[in-house]
Amino acid sequence: MTELRKDPVSGRWVIISPERGKRPSDFSFEEFPEIKKEGCPFCEGNETITPPEIFSYRKNGTKPDTPGWRIRVVPNKFPALRMESKLNKKEEGIYEMMSGVGAHEVIVETPKHIEDILVSSDLKVAEEVIKVYRQRMIELMKDARFEYVLVFKNKGKEAGASLNHSHSQIIATPVVPKRVEEELEGSRKYFNDKEKCVFCDMIRQEISMEERLLWEDEYFISFCPFASRFPYEMTILPKRHTCDFREINQKEIKSFARMLKNCIKNLNRIVPHLPYNYLIHTCPSSRQNLSYYHWHLEIIPRLTVIAGFEWGAGFYINYMPPEKAAKNLRA
Amino acid sequence: MTELRKDPVSGRWVIISPERGKRPSDFSFEEFPEIKKEGCPFCEGNETITPPEIFSYRKNGTKPDTPGWRIRVVPNKFPALRMESKLNKKEEGIYEMMSGVGAHEVIVETPKHIEDILVSSDLKVAEEVIKVYRQRMIELMKDARFEYVLVFKNKGKEAGASLNHSHSQIIATPVVPKRVEEELEGSRKYFNDKEKCVFCDMIRQEISMEERLLWEDEYFISFCPFASRFPYEMTILPKRHTCDFREINQKEIKSFARMLKNCIKNLNRIVPHLPYNYLIHTCPSSRQNLSYYHWHLEIIPRLTVIAGFEWGAGFYINYMPPEKAAKNLRA
Repeated sequence: MTELRKDPVSGRWVIISPERGKRPSDFSFEEFPEIKKEGCPFCEGNETITPPEIFSYRKNGTKPDTPGWRIRVVPNKFPALRMESKLNKKEEGIYEMMSGVGAHEVIVETPKHIEDILVSSDLKVAEEVIKVYRQRMIELMKDARFEYVLVFKNKGKEAGASLNHSHSQIIATPVVPKRVEEELEGSRKYFNDKEKCVFCDMIRQEISMEERLLWEDEYFISFCPFASRFPYEMTILPKRHTCDFREINQKEIKSFARMLKNCIKNLNRIVPHLPYNYLIHTCPSSRQNLSYYHWHLEIIPRLTVIAGFEWGAGFYINYMPPEKAAKNLRA
Repeated sequence: MTELRKDPVSGRWVIISPERGKRPSDFSFEEFPEIKKEGCPFCEGNETITPPEIFSYRKNGTKPDTPGWRIRVVPNKFPALRMESKLNKKEEGIYEMMSGVGAHEVIVETPKHIEDILVSSDLKVAEEVIKVYRQRMIELMKDARFEYVLVFKNKGKEAGASLNHSHSQIIATPVVPKRVEEELEGSRKYFNDKEKCVFCDMIRQEISMEERLLWEDEYFISFCPFASRFPYEMTILPKRHTCDFREINQKEIKSFARMLKNCIKNLNRIVPHLPYNYLIHTCPSSRQNLSYYHWHLEIIPRLTVIAGFEWGAGFYINYMPPEKAAKNLRA
């Protein structure tokens, strides 16, 4: 049965249409062409191919931009935004623009040519990657020019990755992105109505309903969201209310890393090498201690193509009910 | 130089970052596997493969669902929404849902196995297709259950098409889609501030600035929008202020068809068989005669992949400045 579902935070409607699952083209995607270790700018020994490193976890005594590192942060060679500019705003008739000031960094998650550290490496590696996310977010949010810092990962060509060596990215922007503003506005409205955080309510309801729940421990839960836009879409939420990813503590990092690995490993079990994106939504740098917002991570598997209806309507058709997706992922 | 630009209607920011244009992967896409005429459900002689036709332009004396047609409208075999259901709204804790009532139709634009009527066929064919858009929109908007009717086209596999025989689609929905609501809200705000339609202002500014203008005649203009999300993105706007596509008249249909052909033909000249989507944004069925809204058509070429940053931020990185795109398209 086809059903329309509304996302309680953004107000976005989704069409859950299991019948469309029959279309064979929905599950086809190309495999990523392997790049040999020699040419890979993210492999150990090739440090000079990237711009100089910003930060690294490395063996004592080894020098920056040489082997000996475990995780390495470098500027993106083709940055979307640049640190060097000043923030100039301009107007031209009805149009507004500003200079492209910002930061665009790459987090190389391992010196080895591994496609996905969340699938092949120890938990310890994922924990260190999360520590680096926090460390870079703290650092970039100190720059008063940046209103927002987005951490994200593109895995696989269909998800926008141009290299298959395991890596994440960070972009700092001088404006709060639209999608984040929408979430902030939606959750503020909910809080004004009910004096409760919509995400805290979501945690309670998903735990009690169970059908969309994936995994749960003392600190985090993961589930397939009620109004999933995509087959196998997943959300990870911290149980402790905080709007700010930078406040994640040591115990939570361990739990978060385990949860993220569980999600990706099981996604990979269903469709090997499935392309995906994930991203962390946190508060803007100038808006902290928000009682109505709650940081979280979204995982977007890229099984299907976004077509004209989705672009035109901003309204998604998903052939996989999240209840079924959760059942498959937990299996 | 990288620049951030704000769309004056939706308030969405875009990063115009010409440097990223150097990445070779940006221009790669697969060609559509050809389906032989025999198996194509949209070819003349194969009428029984589709559900029974809803509407057609056909030779006098020929029967529905037999050869003799020029354009044929049929229900989508795998509909996202269905006519048969009643509109039931439900709530479950924090979540809202409703039954999947709606319509999902396919407009088969030619009996011949042609990939794109806008490239290969006479102007007359495109004119008739636009007449059918209007006719179906008028018809579907009479159903009180439908709040919105979206006309769109997916061309090529990367744009979400599952068949390559030239066709468009229509989906009628029981709620106004989020992207349309955003445009309505943004343009209403502009009107409240300035007592002018933002789209009418856009027409004046694009004509006077020229650098993003593509083509212009008595009735329509086309241009690459100031805050283009995608390389070679195009907008077609009627010069006469009306929020309602159903009001398009005979002369305007001729001009609109010519404009649309110009846009697609020139896009195809730059990258042959380039996948694209287009869509018509018009007023919701229950909100007519809006002084602040203006119907239009958006063309979204699918040269690049949407990655984690775009999903997470709702903020696009476009390596092709619209001024350069317009120059290439006009060349």
